[in-house]
Amino acid sequence: MATVSDITASATINGLSAILFLVLFGILRLQPMNDRVYFSKWYLKGIRENTKTTGPFVKKFINLDYRMYLKLLNWVPASLKMPESELIDHAGLDSVVYIRIYLLGLKIFVPIALLAFTVLLPVNYTDRNFDILITKVEDLTFSQIDKFSISNVPSGSKRLFVHIFMAYVFTFWTCYMLYREYKIVTDMRLHFLATEKRRPDQFTVLVRNIPPDVDESVSEYVEHFFRVNHPDQYLLHQVVYNANKLAKIVTQKKDLRNRLVYYSNKYERRPNRRPTTKAGFWGLWGKTIDAIDYYSAEIEKLSNKEVEERERVIGDPKAVVPAAFVSFKSRWGAAVCAQTQQTRNPTHWITDWAPEPRDVYWDNLSMPFMELNIRRVLMAGAFIGLTFFFMIPIAFVQTLANIESIEKVVPFLKPIIDGGTMKPIIQGFLPGIVLKIFLILLPMILMEMSKIEGYFTISTLESRAAGKFHLFLLVNVFLGSIVTGTVLQQIQVFLKESPSEIPKIASVAIPMKATFFITYIMVDGWAGIAAEILKVVPLIIFHLKNIFLVKTEIDREEATDQGSLLWATYEPRMQLYFLLGLVYSTVTPILLPFIIVFFAFAYLVFRHQVINVYDQKYESAASYWPDVHRRIIIGLMISQILLLGLLSTKQALHSTPFMLVLPVLTFLFHRYCKSRFESAFRKFPLQDAMIKDTLENAREPHLNLRTYLRGAYIHPVFKGLELDTSMDVYEDDNPVVATTRRSHKGSSGELSSILVV
Amino acid sequence: MATVSDITASATINGLSAILFLVLFGILRLQPMNDRVYFSKWYLKGIRENTKTTGPFVKKFINLDYRMYLKLLNWVPASLKMPESELIDHAGLDSVVYIRIYLLGLKIFVPIALLAFTVLLPVNYTDRNFDILITKVEDLTFSQIDKFSISNVPSGSKRLFVHIFMAYVFTFWTCYMLYREYKIVTDMRLHFLATEKRRPDQFTVLVRNIPPDVDESVSEYVEHFFRVNHPDQYLLHQVVYNANKLAKIVTQKKDLRNRLVYYSNKYERRPNRRPTTKAGFWGLWGKTIDAIDYYSAEIEKLSNKEVEERERVIGDPKAVVPAAFVSFKSRWGAAVCAQTQQTRNPTHWITDWAPEPRDVYWDNLSMPFMELNIRRVLMAGAFIGLTFFFMIPIAFVQTLANIESIEKVVPFLKPIIDGGTMKPIIQGFLPGIVLKIFLILLPMILMEMSKIEGYFTISTLESRAAGKFHLFLLVNVFLGSIVTGTVLQQIQVFLKESPSEIPKIASVAIPMKATFFITYIMVDGWAGIAAEILKVVPLIIFHLKNIFLVKTEIDREEATDQGSLLWATYEPRMQLYFLLGLVYSTVTPILLPFIIVFFAFAYLVFRHQVINVYDQKYESAASYWPDVHRRIIIGLMISQILLLGLLSTKQALHSTPFMLVLPVLTFLFHRYCKSRFESAFRKFPLQDAMIKDTLENAREPHLNLRTYLRGAYIHPVFKGLELDTSMDVYEDDNPVVATTRRSHKGSSGELSSILVV
Repeated sequence: MATVSDITASATINGLSAILFLVLFGILRLQPMNDRVYFSKWYLKGIRENTKTTGPFVKKFINLDYRMYLKLLNWVPASLKMPESELIDHAGLDSVVYIRIYLLGLKIFVPIALLAFTVLLPVNYTDRNFDILITKVEDLTFSQIDKFSISNVPSGSKRLFVHIFMAYVFTFWTCYMLYREYKIVTDMRLHFLATEKRRPDQFTVLVRNIPPDVDESVSEYVEHFFRVNHPDQYLLHQVVYNANKLAKIVTQKKDLRNRLVYYSNKYERRPNRRPTTKAGFWGLWGKTIDAIDYYSAEIEKLSNKEVEERERVIGDPKAVVPAAFVSFKSRWGAAVCAQTQQTRNPTHWITDWAPEPRDVYWDNLSMPFMELNIRRVLMAGAFIGLTFFFMIPIAFVQTLANIESIEKVVPFLKPIIDGGTMKPIIQGFLPGIVLKIFLILLPMILMEMSKIEGYFTISTLESRAAGKFHLFLLVNVFLGSIVTGTVLQQIQVFLKESPSEIPKIASVAIPMKATFFITYIMVDGWAGIAAEILKVVPLIIFHLKNIFLVKTEIDREEATDQGSLLWATYEPRMQLYFLLGLVYSTVTPILLPFIIVFFAFAYLVFRHQVINVYDQKYESAASYWPDVHRRIIIGLMISQILLLGLLSTKQALHSTPFMLVLPVLTFLFHRYCKSRFESAFRKFPLQDAMIKDTLENAREPHLNLRTYLRGAYIHPVFKGLELDTSMDVYEDDNPVVATTRRSHKGSSGELSSILVV
Repeated sequence: MATVSDITASATINGLSAILFLVLFGILRLQPMNDRVYFSKWYLKGIRENTKTTGPFVKKFINLDYRMYLKLLNWVPASLKMPESELIDHAGLDSVVYIRIYLLGLKIFVPIALLAFTVLLPVNYTDRNFDILITKVEDLTFSQIDKFSISNVPSGSKRLFVHIFMAYVFTFWTCYMLYREYKIVTDMRLHFLATEKRRPDQFTVLVRNIPPDVDESVSEYVEHFFRVNHPDQYLLHQVVYNANKLAKIVTQKKDLRNRLVYYSNKYERRPNRRPTTKAGFWGLWGKTIDAIDYYSAEIEKLSNKEVEERERVIGDPKAVVPAAFVSFKSRWGAAVCAQTQQTRNPTHWITDWAPEPRDVYWDNLSMPFMELNIRRVLMAGAFIGLTFFFMIPIAFVQTLANIESIEKVVPFLKPIIDGGTMKPIIQGFLPGIVLKIFLILLPMILMEMSKIEGYFTISTLESRAAGKFHLFLLVNVFLGSIVTGTVLQQIQVFLKESPSEIPKIASVAIPMKATFFITYIMVDGWAGIAAEILKVVPLIIFHLKNIFLVKTEIDREEATDQGSLLWATYEPRMQLYFLLGLVYSTVTPILLPFIIVFFAFAYLVFRHQVINVYDQKYESAASYWPDVHRRIIIGLMISQILLLGLLSTKQALHSTPFMLVLPVLTFLFHRYCKSRFESAFRKFPLQDAMIKDTLENAREPHLNLRTYLRGAYIHPVFKGLELDTSMDVYEDDNPVVATTRRSHKGSSGELSSILVV
């Protein structure tokens, strides 16, 4: 176990590194050459332009005005200044609600910490379990921190009822804040949707799993189906092309063009020598050739291939996938179609609200129903495998976290570790960083797994990946750290116990693991967030691109990667802090200030980033909130169950009924919130649709929706082309449905089934 | 443990009593005086009339034709003869699909039994676990039956893999049959709905939780809301009156009228003496008064009260509950409204398909959202309490089931029990019957609990009560019998084990409990079904009524209680047989023939009853099938888990992965069936609605739906009155909505919110 001085050392290191990052950020952001990285959002909006260079050339890159450097922390008040409503206009509701989660963390934990420090800390500290233990056991090691934790209260003590009471108070407070926040976010979402400008997705429904038809093409079949079944509301539809191959060619071409630009630039700078490359893989081997000629020829080849493929896709009826975007004359019509079942077979003609065009994940639109199911089952299996496979490296990391354990295992290392300044460094940095490398790679793997599962919007993909990551963090970082760490200390006990004993072991280990988690919060939370604001990787990439690829201002614009909030990575990690705060609020409240510092710091940093840097790829109007709510509830219930286990090992068995009520009540609270609020995030009520329709009709009676919606949902590779993917055979609202269907027996369409029934 | 001779004795007794019941039934049904009880459905349909009495007077009551008695079992082929399609017309889809469940039992268990008898029985019988045990332990008691069970295979034997393989075969067969049946029932339901005649509920939606409005009455508010939000489809609506008090008065009056008739009849038979009664409670004490005068006066009083209350209900706006039946111009409009969310607040304006008028449970229509939730939580708690409180009497019953245990506890009873013929009687009858009495009372309690939960259709009430009963039978009859029975045998072991050991104990006890369950099947199943066809209680009640209350033919018609299939009682009990069959198919297959006999016999009897007796109170078009399917799946998974536990105690631990796969696969199968079929039982697809609408428009273009639907949903106490509960202010389809709303700020209606947004 780490001592107080270890914690102090670690806090100093991490605090200093955080401050170092901030100072660096303060300096870097003032340099004009970094302007595009640290204020990318403003460039994107066209508000910030490249500053005219008046003065010496160097001023274009480096800020020489020393007064500016005196106000290094200027960005802090600036980022807090913008009011929320303006921020929604500026950055979208997704980002604003995301920042509110950090604020929610503060709202939950600041009062809890105050209460815990005034009530629980004195109760724990004035008891004397460790004093008793010391007299009994000789070589017991424990730190000062443990004197502030529940471990200092002896078994069977009446003082444990204070902890139970506080668990109730904390639960009620957390639930109250969650309820309030759910209500606020729901209102924000509904207001946002109600005041939103006209968008194609408001009128459109995505239809998947269109059954094959022998007589009609997909496009004709869709047209007929919706003309028959939504006669007053159907407007037009757009079929979906399977352009995955074409998209790949376009990406390849872009890559080649970058290389061409790189070599052209090189040639321009040193016109005396033509740049060369090698013909083999990635230009690494093969015979040497002229680079500019080679890449020009390659691009030419690919361009031809692209044109060919494009023609094939548009011409070939097999390139049309059995899915379509169907648009209606009003939002009401779309709301009706999205919420109802179309045919007897619920696996055909599946309708959903269309995602906004940039949210569509085109590759997955053609997945058949059975294949989807099988893919999801397989991925669930793969995910379980992944989760438990990762246990092994994590367990290895945890051995490093515990220097005393190492010393016991390899005693000859003891003088080295104890002697120098090694110990606090190892203790403070190493375990967090090794874990970190795992965790950085993981979200990408999980995202790929979600793509295989076949979800068709980027927002769903991110939310699914986030769900997996959350579960992974729960099992491996939280439970894994607790149980595995204890295994090394109590390996003999563990081998004798049955699997059902693991929860008990976990709850016993929790107070012991407080110091480990404090270190984790500092490394992952404090220093991690400070690194976030510095944006090291995008900064380096921007400057590399700037040197090698940029010729014109447009190139420079393209070189700027604004990036976006990586929801699937950040949110589950944040949930870990909620979980830690809730678990330790009754057990070792001394951990809470570290969490509060994290939430406050993160709130500040992300507010700054959202204002100045990030550009969201899509806007889901905070549709992720039910997930956030559910995960905090899960954390709350885990904390209650662990406290229950802990108390039962403390021989406060008559407290069990009191502690059993708590998770049940929490679950009922969750059920209530779900039934009260969740539908606002899943369905679009008809009344709201009708109000928006009515208002629009009154304001713009002559609006031509058909021209507005036509081409709204075309695959991005077709963007800019004069390609009309929508079928407009019936420009006038002719109610007679032309059909190419031959009238033979057994055809399965809707018209013939009228005759059959 | 019961020996083979005990089982034989029990089988003889139960078989004989079943045959006795059948002979009795054969005789009784031939008597003209019982005709109305045994052929009540035909009377109800008007096909069977009271036979003209040609011949001696006695022939009116008793059948003297001896030739009829020679064909006692004539009803068997007769009840099998009617083809299924005709049966649907005759008795409705609910009853037909109900009978199919018994047939499904046969389809599942006959092949399983054949396979088990050819494969598993020889495998078990030729092993020699008991031979080994006998040489080791002196006083081990086991019966011949156990030699046919898995108990005869020693631990760690390779033969256990035959059982695992058979578990796979049985699972796949059961799932295949379940899938096939789900598909057939879905098709039957969809066909039934498609060919169904025009019914009010096809056009109607039940709206609940209409929010209070300061300016408008419920009726006006509903009118405006739907005119605005479903402008093209809304037709009319009917408000719901809180007539619970009025309904109570009507029932009281009917009861008093029965008494009056009784005394009038008495007076007619003995005109020399006026019948008297007593003024006190139920005519049991108080001063003696003239009965006819007294009841006439009482009826008079109640009639006045009824008129008063009726006027109050119709006149008082507070008697209108915040719920309404809203009818649309087409089935399409109703389908849309039922499947969509109306407003932002999902707890207001909740829309559901309207149940058919006779299916409505009027008392519960006014429940507010929060109250509903609280009631359901409380009832869930009460049900858990009930389930575990019942454990005590059941445990007591089980001590009786085990004569050997009694003899060990009270040795002086031994000569009495062993000496006479007592033993087989006690063994065969007592445990089953005591259990039976508990179980007869239970469904009524559970039904009342479901009513408190606030469901508003009789079909849902029955399905909820069935769900509770099923859980109760699972916990108390199945698990309770197994675990408690074993507790008495192994009380010392049990006290030492932790609660997590119970599943293991259960699986060990299963083979031992086979004989108990065989007895249970014979008593509850065989004899119970035979008693069902005899309809003793309705027969007695009919004859009593006939003697005391009947004057005219109409009275006699009213005295006949056709009864209906008690879904909430029969279905969960039947599920117990599915569970027993699945659990014992691999463990003690000798139990299977008893189950097959039960299913075959029950199929026969219920087919007869459905044709000749029962009259369903409502028609839900087999909407209960997903429940049936789910419960059989639950039984299948329980059987797999118990076999897993049993095998792990048999030291076939390397078999665990094979056995773990099985419940996972079964669960995935269930998920697939759910996504594939369940929506056909929950939602009404728009295409089907459109087809029916189109056909109807073509056939009856001038149909006046308004007159057809008006008054379809009025409370039964208002039936027959010329009461117009629907609001018809806008007979012509005037799109302008008149409003009584004062235009003040903050009113919450839909029109003002248009202005506010």
